[in-house]
Amino acid sequence: MPFPYHKINGQDIAHFRTIIGEERIVEKEAVKKEYHHDEMPEYGVYAPDLLIEAINKEEISQIMKYAYEKNIPVTVRGAGTGLAGGATCKYGGILLSVMKMNRILGVDMDNMTITTEPGALLSEVADAASAAGLFYPPDPGERTASIGGTVVTNAGGMRAVKYGVTRDYVRAIEAVLPDGEIVNFSSNVVKNTTGYDLKDLVIGSEGTLCILTQVTLKLIAKPKLTWSLVIPYDSIEHCISTVPKLLKMSFVPTAIEFTETDVLDMVEKHLNKRFPDRSSDAYLIVMLDANTKEEMEKMVEEAAGTAIGAGAKDVLISNTAERSASVWSVRAGTLEGLKADSLSQEECDVVVPRSKIAEYVLEAKKISKKHGIRIVTVGHAGDGNIHTELLKDPHLTEQEWKVNTHACLEELYAVSKRLGGQLSGEHGIGIGRLEHMRHFVGERMYRLFQSVKMVFDDKNILNPGKVVALDSKGRCGA
Amino acid sequence: MPFPYHKINGQDIAHFRTIIGEERIVEKEAVKKEYHHDEMPEYGVYAPDLLIEAINKEEISQIMKYAYEKNIPVTVRGAGTGLAGGATCKYGGILLSVMKMNRILGVDMDNMTITTEPGALLSEVADAASAAGLFYPPDPGERTASIGGTVVTNAGGMRAVKYGVTRDYVRAIEAVLPDGEIVNFSSNVVKNTTGYDLKDLVIGSEGTLCILTQVTLKLIAKPKLTWSLVIPYDSIEHCISTVPKLLKMSFVPTAIEFTETDVLDMVEKHLNKRFPDRSSDAYLIVMLDANTKEEMEKMVEEAAGTAIGAGAKDVLISNTAERSASVWSVRAGTLEGLKADSLSQEECDVVVPRSKIAEYVLEAKKISKKHGIRIVTVGHAGDGNIHTELLKDPHLTEQEWKVNTHACLEELYAVSKRLGGQLSGEHGIGIGRLEHMRHFVGERMYRLFQSVKMVFDDKNILNPGKVVALDSKGRCGA
Repeated sequence: MPFPYHKINGQDIAHFRTIIGEERIVEKEAVKKEYHHDEMPEYGVYAPDLLIEAINKEEISQIMKYAYEKNIPVTVRGAGTGLAGGATCKYGGILLSVMKMNRILGVDMDNMTITTEPGALLSEVADAASAAGLFYPPDPGERTASIGGTVVTNAGGMRAVKYGVTRDYVRAIEAVLPDGEIVNFSSNVVKNTTGYDLKDLVIGSEGTLCILTQVTLKLIAKPKLTWSLVIPYDSIEHCISTVPKLLKMSFVPTAIEFTETDVLDMVEKHLNKRFPDRSSDAYLIVMLDANTKEEMEKMVEEAAGTAIGAGAKDVLISNTAERSASVWSVRAGTLEGLKADSLSQEECDVVVPRSKIAEYVLEAKKISKKHGIRIVTVGHAGDGNIHTELLKDPHLTEQEWKVNTHACLEELYAVSKRLGGQLSGEHGIGIGRLEHMRHFVGERMYRLFQSVKMVFDDKNILNPGKVVALDSKGRCGA
Repeated sequence: MPFPYHKINGQDIAHFRTIIGEERIVEKEAVKKEYHHDEMPEYGVYAPDLLIEAINKEEISQIMKYAYEKNIPVTVRGAGTGLAGGATCKYGGILLSVMKMNRILGVDMDNMTITTEPGALLSEVADAASAAGLFYPPDPGERTASIGGTVVTNAGGMRAVKYGVTRDYVRAIEAVLPDGEIVNFSSNVVKNTTGYDLKDLVIGSEGTLCILTQVTLKLIAKPKLTWSLVIPYDSIEHCISTVPKLLKMSFVPTAIEFTETDVLDMVEKHLNKRFPDRSSDAYLIVMLDANTKEEMEKMVEEAAGTAIGAGAKDVLISNTAERSASVWSVRAGTLEGLKADSLSQEECDVVVPRSKIAEYVLEAKKISKKHGIRIVTVGHAGDGNIHTELLKDPHLTEQEWKVNTHACLEELYAVSKRLGGQLSGEHGIGIGRLEHMRHFVGERMYRLFQSVKMVFDDKNILNPGKVVALDSKGRCGA
């Protein structure tokens, strides 16, 4: 325990009942098991002492005032779809769900923004934008994520190549600080140099700095057409070496993904989905958005010429939104397919300079062979973010799996660092990658991280044990 | 003084001579007057005790180690083109120029980035990108700014409507911390969720957190054509109410500026530049980028239809880069024109939600009348950033000017706050807006700012007295 936290007792629960409706407080034994972990139970299963479902910021403020005074850890929970073990009560205490704060407060047509509570789903926010004739581009695979969760993890996704990540769409954040004070980070303005950029610090902070109660997000004009290209290659090297060339075209593709034939095997086998071409070892899948058919045809022509020039065997065009969707559903099913094809999984979410993707992928193959762990690389070729999935096969003992995946991860992170990459591209640190952080970012950067945590959360009560570890006194010591 | 700083003596200078070449250390009396202030001497004229011109990060690291140990304030200086009094030695000490660290280290074609030392000029970076067939979009009016200065102030500029601000182009920062340690914030990757986003915290921190020694910036494909539209209106209300409509078109205009006839008068009178139309009271100037003439013609058609539908009297097309440049040179001459037309200036750089621009401009006119101070609003209609220039006319005594501009500023900031705006959109806080910060952002946010400053600079030796004030012990007290 980083801190001698107060253990919730009957008196505390009685106090919370004066703030929160009876039906929205669930005591330890009654808390459903799904709240003990996120999508990666591998990163820890922890029972909260109390589950509270808040319905507004005033409630959250009152809960935090009490928790701050009493020294009770609080972990905020959205939809629980994270992949880093971020939304779990590592040190017990309160699991504070914001999923009942799910009102979309409106689309502002003049400012082209949408304002929403944190518990609305990403899909609901995207739909509300679309209903207003506008477009919310961030699209991590998991569309049942809470929108607040996507902000505190700075969710990425495939369309980041053209449209950027969640960070690029957050105009304003209303939040409760660990001591209960309600503050606003920026407002509905498109540029801001008023003091330090704490809004961007909060984005991606994985619920360790403050609790989001409202966000205002930028929307853009909706592209009228979406087509996709499936581009087969004889080798992964040729496949990936096309990427920088695609990025230098006169327009920016919406998404550029790569996949290999073994991944397609798994998805087809377990999910009954069919990829339109199986002639080749490696594929690029490219998504294009345009407003007119004419514009689209020009884009396709340029992209196809670029790909063929770089060694592609063919370029298959999915020229309707529906056909395009079917291509992407195979890509979207990757994680599910890998899960179905293995007994357990570990994941490495490195991001490397786009020019280094091929080198990283080849190194990952070597590391796989060396340690006898099946490693599959899929991912966002357009932004260098390679989901490197480590899969447990039946022949491995638990001990072999544990020791060898650890050895693989250490080597994969070392490769990423050597290539100028980072530890995590979009899934975040949470618990899952915490043990690798200090070494990866270096001692001084880690101390800056610890100190920043303490600026917001001097008692270390908000989602403790995630992103950074603090010492036994909860202070920023060695 | 926020701190009992050490006053530089002969022994210190002797020490610096062991690190820095003789010819790059200038003692107090020999420091040119231009180093006593930036482009706004109104915000303070301060003589440094010592000017040091560094040539590499190792020198800076050594200087900072000594300054940290001895408690000597250090202020970094780029080209000195800031508008907030940011790069001045408010408390004496060392003025550390990085203008000799001006090497552009290369364009990385595969990652589409440029890496440069901080003292290269913005124009040089833009030219180097262009020579490589690529494009660096950020374009604040002042192209002789140092690139490092544009990063630490998160410079905006006209093209922000389509392309965003400097922040959107910074991939990686290498910097020296106040105690001399050299660190890297992120790397050449396009997404990153490895811990807290300190890179974005450093961007816009006005040299108060660390000293930039190298930056890597994103480049994009160069648009092939740039045209401009000059759109006359009978009233400023009609003019500005067109803006949200232009932003909802099927494409995003590169820039949307507004100007009024009195501003054009001043520029034409003092700078001998001619605006292509003088028939009307108010104008929008719209810049469009495209890759083909066909695409451009469609964009012009849609923009013209939108403007006419919203009450424009006409739409004048500048359909070559040259003609377009001549329109923009009038806009670019605004500040110079206003300076020539008045005895002294104060500036308010608020940003408001784009839907509130017209309301703000009308309020500014009322405030001008109420306090008898000439106020001119020009600016970035496309992003709600309105440069509100207060001009001293000959009939005003110094005392009237001082008291009344202060009253105007307080009211203008209150209007911005009421409309959901911010204190500064792109020029930053520096010294110039510091007295308004605490009240504007609120006590709690201000304390967060102070604490963040202390995380990086616990002795408050780096550019002290800018962005936030600290108490007499240099700590974050009241």
